[in-house]
Amino acid sequence: MTSIFTKIIRGEIPCEKIHESNHAIAFLDIAPYIFGHTLVVAKREEARLENLPSEEAAALMNFMQEIAGAVSQAYDGCDYNAFLYNGPDAGQEVPHLHFHIIPRPPGVMVNFRTRLSYTDDERQKTGSQIRACLKKG
Amino acid sequence: MTSIFTKIIRGEIPCEKIHESNHAIAFLDIAPYIFGHTLVVAKREEARLENLPSEEAAALMNFMQEIAGAVSQAYDGCDYNAFLYNGPDAGQEVPHLHFHIIPRPPGVMVNFRTRLSYTDDERQKTGSQIRACLKKG
Repeated sequence: MTSIFTKIIRGEIPCEKIHESNHAIAFLDIAPYIFGHTLVVAKREEARLENLPSEEAAALMNFMQEIAGAVSQAYDGCDYNAFLYNGPDAGQEVPHLHFHIIPRPPGVMVNFRTRLSYTDDERQKTGSQIRACLKKG
Repeated sequence: MTSIFTKIIRGEIPCEKIHESNHAIAFLDIAPYIFGHTLVVAKREEARLENLPSEEAAALMNFMQEIAGAVSQAYDGCDYNAFLYNGPDAGQEVPHLHFHIIPRPPGVMVNFRTRLSYTDDERQKTGSQIRACLKKG
């Protein structure tokens, strides 16, 4: 069965895309813990980290460094979490490998049991703000 | 200032080591969320993911795949979390880059606000159990 992330990768479902490489894509979580919450997704439809071919895992990590750096810069260089839920017992909702990059601005509590939502305008603005912080070249 | 993890890497402080590579080391968290909770630590004393040289980050990811796979296998192939706390506002306690690998056996609640402790015997047994699941060669 095709995962919802594969449909996003193929362009069959829209997303607020941050960036894309050969092996990975990053887009905003539509139900974020906090605005700026970004998913870093392997393009290969594989659920588990230990099963991803090592070259693709390495590429995913380097891509994640780039995306996490931009998310941080978009919020004044704030700290962040990178969370992997590997399998349903670990909280994985979509069986397609992805890390959650969650900005953690100082003094802001994040409730990991509550999901927020964006208006279209808020989502596009958040995406622009992060994309503007990607390193050029 | 030398981090406690650098002291562990240098062998100045003991640990229940799972495995080691050129750029990374894995050992049991001494105050685990759940038995088997393992830290995957970059050998370079750098606090933040986006600042780790890309080759070392790639190596860290491949090492983490190996360690996480062994942690999973040590608990009947269970699911797991891989959590990065990148900076103090994100919950980072030691300013030296590390991922937390947390086994999530089915039906077991993990309280992320409580840390457990091992007896010496329990810790050694847990370490042996995970090391026995590392792939040979």
